[in-house]
Amino acid sequence: MRGRFIALEGGEGVGKSTQVKALAAALRTRGHDVIETREPGGSEGAEAIRKLLLEGSADRWTPGAEALLFAAARADHVAKTIRPALEAGAWVVTDRFLDSSLAYQGGAGGISIGQLRQLHQVGSVGLLPDRTLLLTLPSEEAARRAEARDRGASDRIGGRDADYHLRVAEAFTLLATQEPDRFRLIDALGDAEIVTERLLAALEDL
Amino acid sequence: MRGRFIALEGGEGVGKSTQVKALAAALRTRGHDVIETREPGGSEGAEAIRKLLLEGSADRWTPGAEALLFAAARADHVAKTIRPALEAGAWVVTDRFLDSSLAYQGGAGGISIGQLRQLHQVGSVGLLPDRTLLLTLPSEEAARRAEARDRGASDRIGGRDADYHLRVAEAFTLLATQEPDRFRLIDALGDAEIVTERLLAALEDL
Repeated sequence: MRGRFIALEGGEGVGKSTQVKALAAALRTRGHDVIETREPGGSEGAEAIRKLLLEGSADRWTPGAEALLFAAARADHVAKTIRPALEAGAWVVTDRFLDSSLAYQGGAGGISIGQLRQLHQVGSVGLLPDRTLLLTLPSEEAARRAEARDRGASDRIGGRDADYHLRVAEAFTLLATQEPDRFRLIDALGDAEIVTERLLAALEDL
Repeated sequence: MRGRFIALEGGEGVGKSTQVKALAAALRTRGHDVIETREPGGSEGAEAIRKLLLEGSADRWTPGAEALLFAAARADHVAKTIRPALEAGAWVVTDRFLDSSLAYQGGAGGISIGQLRQLHQVGSVGLLPDRTLLLTLPSEEAARRAEARDRGASDRIGGRDADYHLRVAEAFTLLATQEPDRFRLIDALGDAEIVTERLLAALEDL
């Protein structure tokens, strides 16, 4: 008996956190035990690392230090939250996982994808989701939402410039192209209920 | 113009922190600018990570998460403290560096040496000391000093059992054997002044 591991991925403002909640609720109505979680964070140690990652000035960490901290947080998240839940037969739905590191620190941040995968191997024995749901928006809509959000508070990484976020989106698309079995691209435009239906349809085979 | 990068290494209680101070003072009397520093820590970000590493219960972090956190702290230490000092022409004397990770998380902790070197490549572009001074004691004397110290406070890592610390010492010796140009073995028995003279003699060619 092993649960299923589902990751929602995508840039800022595509609706991941809303959809994690909605997807978890829908899976529960189908009779599954579901754990909702997020990265960076999702366990006590990882939440402590999250604070280091998201607070402070934009240049607080070098790209290498940032990649190592994300991998350390993920290692703790996997060991303390994700693996125990999967072993207990639960479904785990996470807001971000490894592919966020590959897209943000790799595609947009200058660390090689191969090195980032090695960090994940050291920290988390390379655990991958059973399904990664990539929420996508047209770039103008993503920029509009990011700008609306930035009128509120933005953290160290969400606050980076539009060019950076464009490279993140391109990196996500490339990752999805390389692993078609694991990834599904989900149109994130439209009512939240409709997007949730799209997510559920992309899990049908699991 | 580039300074010199000197690391003191060895197990618990061999006298590294005393000797870092004494060696730095001796180098200053010879006219050098000297920065004294330590790991984990030595920069603002790395000191924040140090707290995560040394506080809490013994099983707070998995071995993989611990290795990633040490590498992240080292990346910050190198970027913010060590490289700027070397580029300004100063000598840097550090209490521990990469070889402590190789001995503690590698030799004694179960992460492969190759993986640990990769983490160092990602975080710190593989920077190595110009000279690594390995302070050594007979294992009975090391155990006696560690025990005396443990009557005081011991941190998450210093507090591990005698077998662990024996494997650390063996791992250090193996590392020194593999890189004879960079390492010098220094007998740490005897008066502090005499040990400092041994350290200085081992830097003569620099």
